[in-house]
Amino acid sequence: MPSKANTYHVHLETDRKRPELFHLPLDQWLAAAKRHRALAKKLRVTVGSNGENLDAALGTADFLITNCPPPKERLRERAPRLKWIQTTAAGVDALLPFDWLPADIALTNNRGAHGPKAFDTVAMALLMLHQRMPETFANQRAQAWQPLYTTPISGKTAVIVGFGDLGQGAGRAAKKLGLTVIAVTRSGKATRIADRVLPTKRIDSVLPKADFVIVTTPLTAETRGLINRERINLLKPGAGFINIGRSPIVDYVALRERLESGTLCGAVLDVFDQEPLPPDSPYWTTKNLVVLPHISCDDPRYVEHLLDFWFGNFERYLTGKKLKNIVDRQLGY
Amino acid sequence: MPSKANTYHVHLETDRKRPELFHLPLDQWLAAAKRHRALAKKLRVTVGSNGENLDAALGTADFLITNCPPPKERLRERAPRLKWIQTTAAGVDALLPFDWLPADIALTNNRGAHGPKAFDTVAMALLMLHQRMPETFANQRAQAWQPLYTTPISGKTAVIVGFGDLGQGAGRAAKKLGLTVIAVTRSGKATRIADRVLPTKRIDSVLPKADFVIVTTPLTAETRGLINRERINLLKPGAGFINIGRSPIVDYVALRERLESGTLCGAVLDVFDQEPLPPDSPYWTTKNLVVLPHISCDDPRYVEHLLDFWFGNFERYLTGKKLKNIVDRQLGY
Repeated sequence: MPSKANTYHVHLETDRKRPELFHLPLDQWLAAAKRHRALAKKLRVTVGSNGENLDAALGTADFLITNCPPPKERLRERAPRLKWIQTTAAGVDALLPFDWLPADIALTNNRGAHGPKAFDTVAMALLMLHQRMPETFANQRAQAWQPLYTTPISGKTAVIVGFGDLGQGAGRAAKKLGLTVIAVTRSGKATRIADRVLPTKRIDSVLPKADFVIVTTPLTAETRGLINRERINLLKPGAGFINIGRSPIVDYVALRERLESGTLCGAVLDVFDQEPLPPDSPYWTTKNLVVLPHISCDDPRYVEHLLDFWFGNFERYLTGKKLKNIVDRQLGY
Repeated sequence: MPSKANTYHVHLETDRKRPELFHLPLDQWLAAAKRHRALAKKLRVTVGSNGENLDAALGTADFLITNCPPPKERLRERAPRLKWIQTTAAGVDALLPFDWLPADIALTNNRGAHGPKAFDTVAMALLMLHQRMPETFANQRAQAWQPLYTTPISGKTAVIVGFGDLGQGAGRAAKKLGLTVIAVTRSGKATRIADRVLPTKRIDSVLPKADFVIVTTPLTAETRGLINRERINLLKPGAGFINIGRSPIVDYVALRERLESGTLCGAVLDVFDQEPLPPDSPYWTTKNLVVLPHISCDDPRYVEHLLDFWFGNFERYLTGKKLKNIVDRQLGY
């Protein structure tokens, strides 16, 4: 069915294997459409899941909102009118490289949605690690009273790897708790939140100073394996480690060795190579490791916020403004 | 041995059963004396433990610094020159009632030492409860991946019972995380940190509004049993509970019932009737309960800070100023 004049077709595609939080059901769309009535009148919507009616929808779709990798094979041929793809995720590492994406199809991600939760999770993780909660929880399980006294966290140093939406949320949290924040970024350009910013190539100079390392960077060709064994071993005794970015950025084998040897105060990891983590994974029982089930940065109002963001961007589209959150095809995020 | 002219005798008494953090050893005194040389010249020090040489010391002591209840029997007779007792604890509930304390012996406590750690612990506990960490830790123990998504904590409401040093530390933490803070205090007088302050008699009106209740009040005749079963049952479903004050303020039996029934998101308790908690205590395994081994408000530099405070107060004593931290004999704190 061709679009009516002045009407665009938007298709919402859900991979039902993803947590329900990230599903794009019709009722959420209709609720968002009520909040954006004038814009919604210009749209015809279809909703699908697990690719079942995807090709029929792509035949006329102008826009795609998807919680899973978009169809990469012969995309232009299958989706002749497609102009814009919106992902529900901020990280688009699963879509790299972008050789499948025609130059005239915009790709926007969901960066900016995760900062407030990153703030909360990193504040919690810093305080838990500093106050030796991983050991204290183990003592509780062993029904053993073993006070571990710690100074206030104020004055400690956090090295934050990546300083986008997540990194800045982490940085705001660390500053509120009185820490010194050193950000490590691609550009090394100064930002308001951090006390110091260094380019990635100088990371080795600051890792030994870190009381806490917080990995928040997107996974790209440049960041894959960035925190390798050598760098894990630069961490000082008693340091804490937090990863809310992606697991392939960090050598988890080396990290686990340091945890098991007791030379770190602990780690809080929210991301793993295999998710859900299987029941027999060694991470569940690694000493002083807190496993978070990939919840660090996601608000249950996720899709509600995403659709509000999308409607705002759709208005920019209609008025010829540049879309927000366009993914840089070279940088990969 | 009588004091030399212009020299005062200070005795440091340690109960070795207390955690080492609270011991008053000679080396700590000598280190503090180096930081306060001029004042230290006016002092002769004796150090004792477990009451072994206590009566000999009391015979000439002008001042007593103690980590345990001072000798109550016939105190004036045994300590004819005693002018001032300093406790290492902030809570003096173990010394109540004060009928043993001669009117001309000042009693000072260690309030004001605990705020920075209370800030850290309460910030951590609020974030852990809000982000459903008690369940998440149980899931980790069961090796089960079960994401529990939560909104940012900002905008939630904390009711803080008691708003002294601990309560204000808790209040600053809650405000930094974006919560609304309702303080419940004896006087009900406004303070800068809290959004609202109510007198204790109106506590029932705010407990049902609390996303989190934080008990920080000293244990006195007025606060014993304050958070009784009826008030525990005023807490709304999903609320979180934190106690860094004293256990007899709260009906823990009623609290455990609500935890076991799953109608609270969890509790973080740092204080118990019996400490150390015995290995067979039911608290270790109560559902969604995090047991802290009385570490919430204590810095390992505790005695160092206490002695610096004491020297400052000693200077006030010499110059005829009113001592800081004098315990109110009527109010009991």
